[in-house]
Amino acid sequence: MNVTYRVRGDAASIEARARAIAVEQSVEMPVEAIEDPAVLDGIVGTVEAIAPGGEGVFEVRIGLAVDTTGFEIGQLLNMLFGNSSIQDDVTLQDVDFPAALTAAFAGPRHGLGELRRRVGAEGRALTCSALKPQGMSAADLGRLAGRLARGGLDYIKDDHGLADQRYSPFADRVQACAEAVAAAGGRTRYVPSLSGHLDQLREQAETALAAGIDTVLVAPMILGLPSVHALVREFPALAFMAHPAMAGAARIAPPLLLGKIFRLIGADATVFPNHGGRFGYSPETCRALAAAALDPWADYRATVPVPAGGMTLARTAEMLDFYGRDSMLLIGGNLLSARERLVEEAQAFTDAVRRHSYR
Amino acid sequence: MNVTYRVRGDAASIEARARAIAVEQSVEMPVEAIEDPAVLDGIVGTVEAIAPGGEGVFEVRIGLAVDTTGFEIGQLLNMLFGNSSIQDDVTLQDVDFPAALTAAFAGPRHGLGELRRRVGAEGRALTCSALKPQGMSAADLGRLAGRLARGGLDYIKDDHGLADQRYSPFADRVQACAEAVAAAGGRTRYVPSLSGHLDQLREQAETALAAGIDTVLVAPMILGLPSVHALVREFPALAFMAHPAMAGAARIAPPLLLGKIFRLIGADATVFPNHGGRFGYSPETCRALAAAALDPWADYRATVPVPAGGMTLARTAEMLDFYGRDSMLLIGGNLLSARERLVEEAQAFTDAVRRHSYR
Repeated sequence: MNVTYRVRGDAASIEARARAIAVEQSVEMPVEAIEDPAVLDGIVGTVEAIAPGGEGVFEVRIGLAVDTTGFEIGQLLNMLFGNSSIQDDVTLQDVDFPAALTAAFAGPRHGLGELRRRVGAEGRALTCSALKPQGMSAADLGRLAGRLARGGLDYIKDDHGLADQRYSPFADRVQACAEAVAAAGGRTRYVPSLSGHLDQLREQAETALAAGIDTVLVAPMILGLPSVHALVREFPALAFMAHPAMAGAARIAPPLLLGKIFRLIGADATVFPNHGGRFGYSPETCRALAAAALDPWADYRATVPVPAGGMTLARTAEMLDFYGRDSMLLIGGNLLSARERLVEEAQAFTDAVRRHSYR
Repeated sequence: MNVTYRVRGDAASIEARARAIAVEQSVEMPVEAIEDPAVLDGIVGTVEAIAPGGEGVFEVRIGLAVDTTGFEIGQLLNMLFGNSSIQDDVTLQDVDFPAALTAAFAGPRHGLGELRRRVGAEGRALTCSALKPQGMSAADLGRLAGRLARGGLDYIKDDHGLADQRYSPFADRVQACAEAVAAAGGRTRYVPSLSGHLDQLREQAETALAAGIDTVLVAPMILGLPSVHALVREFPALAFMAHPAMAGAARIAPPLLLGKIFRLIGADATVFPNHGGRFGYSPETCRALAAAALDPWADYRATVPVPAGGMTLARTAEMLDFYGRDSMLLIGGNLLSARERLVEEAQAFTDAVRRHSYR
């Protein structure tokens, strides 16, 4: 599976950087610490090509083993960009999906042809509008939908901000809008926006079907690609419209996302890239992230900050001084580099933590 | 709910930009087109403060109505950053979560205290390592885990690249690692990484529990925050470690993510910001995205490209010339601005599309 990344850098360093990405997105550990020839030959990412990609940018093509994806959409995304997404100099640019992978997915069940057929729009582009603003009652949204339908639109979708809010509960809204659109007498489709976890999505899909609806809106980067994929497989009668909300999510401050928000949903520990490792977080960011995980907040228990990402045994004392005892140190590849001395190296690490004299 | 964004800009334009963000993250339509006083007073986002935030950057505080979140984690993220995540000049910086919201969530069920108690690590930092490289067999990973456990680690987690791959199926790996860690005789916890959609996560959680495991690893930005939140609520005996994979996901090229990947999992239509609207996509990006959705690929049906984002009736012909008939035009706020003439305006839009003479 060839994967293309755009990487900011200079000619002197790009080869090394490309190799680092190949490792990051495959085995995520020092290659020289790998003993298994099957892993070295079949799993470790390979640099296939490096080409100039404009001022200070290179196009780097990396070969990744398709088996690492497990042929599951979430894990696929993980192998393509999971860690590199956090490194500011890299953009995931394109993927040459091999047949083994495309064969494991089915693509759209309905697609352009059926969406066109359903509304009788042969030979022309389809039309769509959106119901908003949120805050309106279900009845008012229904009236709005009826008016748009009477205007002859093919599809009328919920604003992606419409979920299951008290001012317009999903079931009430679907009923009101479906009835209003049907009453308009045309072939207009009302497209409600689904939200929540998989069971909630299923319940909303059933509600929509019962109201005679055949198309729904989903935001995969919010719902999670695996949930959306499952929903698609389970509801063959529904067509799915995807919304790009959160598709540009890199720019959430780490203390908020990995600290507060993960804590909010119940993470007992949160792993994050420590400063001075393979990632670009500053000491200030790390300190703020740990504080977000630990500081008194509502009646929540503390989340354990787990700094990681290229940490070494040699940094143990410094990290303990920095994070204090309310933390979990995570050292991966550096310990594994010890190979036959792994037990001892691990012991040295745990001993160092056990014996540390906290400031 | 006060939300802080960092915005690149200059003093002359920042006030207007702040108002635009307040609208984008609440009603997502022209405010002057809103009639309902309850929406104007209670739902439309408000600019609470603007302060210098360094060279060419401002800190903008926006007030959002907490009811818009529906008190559901996915929708919360959606209201915080769904659309603005796609606008390059904005970073979601912080949120002042009101009590009404924190009361609707529970935070970590176990947290630092319990994770420490479980391994007998009072008064010191916890320790952790990771099992890798992927590509090793379950038996080999088990042996590796046993060695790390003998080294006295508190927690040994799967590399986040370990999922349910043929070379190390989840159930086999969990059995091998749990047994090896138990055989080491200490209090070390093995922490397997879960993957897939909610039902798969449930099955893996049950498998882990049956093997005596009490802590698991999840990557919320890959699994979807709603799925992870559901899992946390359903498995009170488990502690959850969060992994930051994909937490920096902005930098995926739109043609790949919104075109190919959404098509891969079955999107029948894909909404994306058209060039020249409220978002920064270039005509080239839009053309590539539409091509990714439509071009022959495997045996997939075509996904309908749905350009949107500040489109107007006046642009209909130009957009049809650009995208051709294999598209769906989405016009939201611009139609709604017609207010009492909405039916007619919608009719004008649909007529324009129906009558267009494609090049």
